[in-house]
Amino acid sequence: MKFLVKKEDLYNGIKIVDRAKSSKALQPVLANILIETVNNGTIRLVATDLDLTVVALVDAQVEEEGRITLPSKTLNEIVSKLSNKLISFEMNEGETSVNITCQNSKFDIIGISADEFPPEVYNVEVSEDNGFEIDIKTFTKAVEQAGFAAAGYESSNLLSGVVCDISGAVLEIASTDGNRLARVRKSIDNKDGRANQLIIPSKALNEFVGMSAYIEEDSVNVYTERTKLIIKSERTLLVSRLLEGQFPKYNQLIPNESPKEAVVPVNAFSSAIDRVSIMVNEKTSIVKLSFADNVLKLTADTPDSGKSEEEVDINYTAEPLDIAFNYKFLLESLKKMNCENVKIGLNTSLSATVLKPDSDEDFVCLIMPVQIR
Amino acid sequence: MKFLVKKEDLYNGIKIVDRAKSSKALQPVLANILIETVNNGTIRLVATDLDLTVVALVDAQVEEEGRITLPSKTLNEIVSKLSNKLISFEMNEGETSVNITCQNSKFDIIGISADEFPPEVYNVEVSEDNGFEIDIKTFTKAVEQAGFAAAGYESSNLLSGVVCDISGAVLEIASTDGNRLARVRKSIDNKDGRANQLIIPSKALNEFVGMSAYIEEDSVNVYTERTKLIIKSERTLLVSRLLEGQFPKYNQLIPNESPKEAVVPVNAFSSAIDRVSIMVNEKTSIVKLSFADNVLKLTADTPDSGKSEEEVDINYTAEPLDIAFNYKFLLESLKKMNCENVKIGLNTSLSATVLKPDSDEDFVCLIMPVQIR
Repeated sequence: MKFLVKKEDLYNGIKIVDRAKSSKALQPVLANILIETVNNGTIRLVATDLDLTVVALVDAQVEEEGRITLPSKTLNEIVSKLSNKLISFEMNEGETSVNITCQNSKFDIIGISADEFPPEVYNVEVSEDNGFEIDIKTFTKAVEQAGFAAAGYESSNLLSGVVCDISGAVLEIASTDGNRLARVRKSIDNKDGRANQLIIPSKALNEFVGMSAYIEEDSVNVYTERTKLIIKSERTLLVSRLLEGQFPKYNQLIPNESPKEAVVPVNAFSSAIDRVSIMVNEKTSIVKLSFADNVLKLTADTPDSGKSEEEVDINYTAEPLDIAFNYKFLLESLKKMNCENVKIGLNTSLSATVLKPDSDEDFVCLIMPVQIR
Repeated sequence: MKFLVKKEDLYNGIKIVDRAKSSKALQPVLANILIETVNNGTIRLVATDLDLTVVALVDAQVEEEGRITLPSKTLNEIVSKLSNKLISFEMNEGETSVNITCQNSKFDIIGISADEFPPEVYNVEVSEDNGFEIDIKTFTKAVEQAGFAAAGYESSNLLSGVVCDISGAVLEIASTDGNRLARVRKSIDNKDGRANQLIIPSKALNEFVGMSAYIEEDSVNVYTERTKLIIKSERTLLVSRLLEGQFPKYNQLIPNESPKEAVVPVNAFSSAIDRVSIMVNEKTSIVKLSFADNVLKLTADTPDSGKSEEEVDINYTAEPLDIAFNYKFLLESLKKMNCENVKIGLNTSLSATVLKPDSDEDFVCLIMPVQIR
């Protein structure tokens, strides 16, 4: 194997595939990146943790074909520290030691044979008629807005997935961990108009958001193939397993109208939560909210340490209401509101509370309150 | 107790004293900051870990005198998050709960009585005739340059201290952990010209460097009082214990002349070490250096992983020499060389090696090589 590659091109490629490598590698080869020559002008990089696989094509001057896997961590370190010049990769046939050179730098890196890399993870055939094309920025923004409420990762838990619901020209993304929920709707270019609901492991989507900065194209195609999700651009491919099962009918949980509504300035509210939470009981994270007469009062206390109180001027003329939340859920939802004011829809102190931006965006967060005596 | 204080003034004061608080507090009160009114216009903040004590005076409008200790972490968090306005502190006599208010924010913080705070740590009398005055920037730069080579903290180990040797108008600062050594000399304004050698715990000096950014004055006075070091400005006071014993005669270890000398560009050398160390054996951290014919070759290897090699163009015409070092010691010394080229004084592959800036500065680092087969 022998090829020359620009440092910048290789660096981008590594940054894309690197997110799929396995940190707790059961098989040593899963901590490596597969490097293989494709044709005279291209090499392929592949990394996988078996659940998630990412492939990137990188421009290179290929002089002799070949394939090998190299430790992701070492390769990453070397390429990021090399100067911005042509890097040469060379390996004699039958060997697993790769000679990497760049100007005055030389490395001999011992890899693992490419034959040990599981081929099934990236040899995926895509039938291109069951997908939709989406602008990368639109897609990543939607995932960032509505994917954060998923439950922590457990392979068996459907709630650790993010729902992508395609119906006509609308993509709905939603997640919930049972205590809170986020949902956003975006217009898309859905080729065949077929409806489809995918439950995607949130890790796969988060990694896609992370790698998207290194993808040169503007849009990607999203396909499904049996139990797999495929996100494809001309030069990159992400393959993830899908979660299977019946996701809770979350749309039924979101009230259409709320008997009481407060309009609250997002920045002042966030700062007040940030300060009042200094005195929060670390075991419960509970902050109490009292809505009354155009004022929102926030309080928190920890026995033996003290208490805190904040006031925010708001727009609220309904009956006074006391309600308590895990302050972290409030802060996380407010961070996704890209607007000046948030509309808070209230009912009783035990009802799910609705947060919506004071804009045209079709975005909603739902938070369950905490019962207090 | 009642006073009003500007957020910025209080924040600066806390940042100064906070460095002395005890993280593993044997007595709970040592995790607190003592706050006491001094006169109509001033409050005093004190923190201590018993080895190191820091005092800061802060401007305030004192309406009612009093004293209390409050948890450093909570106080820090509250003050840093409050808006940039007047903050009011109020405590009823006989109570230990302090009411802190600022605009729409209110806190009730439960403190510990000031009577539990050890008074001996900050009631220090200074006889002002046995000290010297030094420009803060000169002093902190000297400490940063020559204090880094001290051994890790062990209260019984003299080598965990930094030597400040005052002799005439020269301040010499030096440290060594037995494997390496750093020494710098600066001109000072020594009032009485008395010679004195202080061994200062490196933690105390590092904390002084950290707090110096918040000290408004340009210079400090450095005194000793029995076994204590006192660094004093008009508004701040740092008291540290001194280490007692006979510090090794390190100046004898530094060779005046070296049989072989290399002139090496600092940036290229640092980058080469940074890259070659990717393949260093993590157990030994050894990088091999080969000086010959105006070229410095660096190599490192780890069995089963691979090896690395770098070349740097240098100025070296003496006999070829192979020598090995812990690469971290090389990098740390090079970071302190504020110049384009470093002069490396060599002898044999087992001799202490001298690094000096290629400038007029009186600064030297000494590194012991590692024996290799």
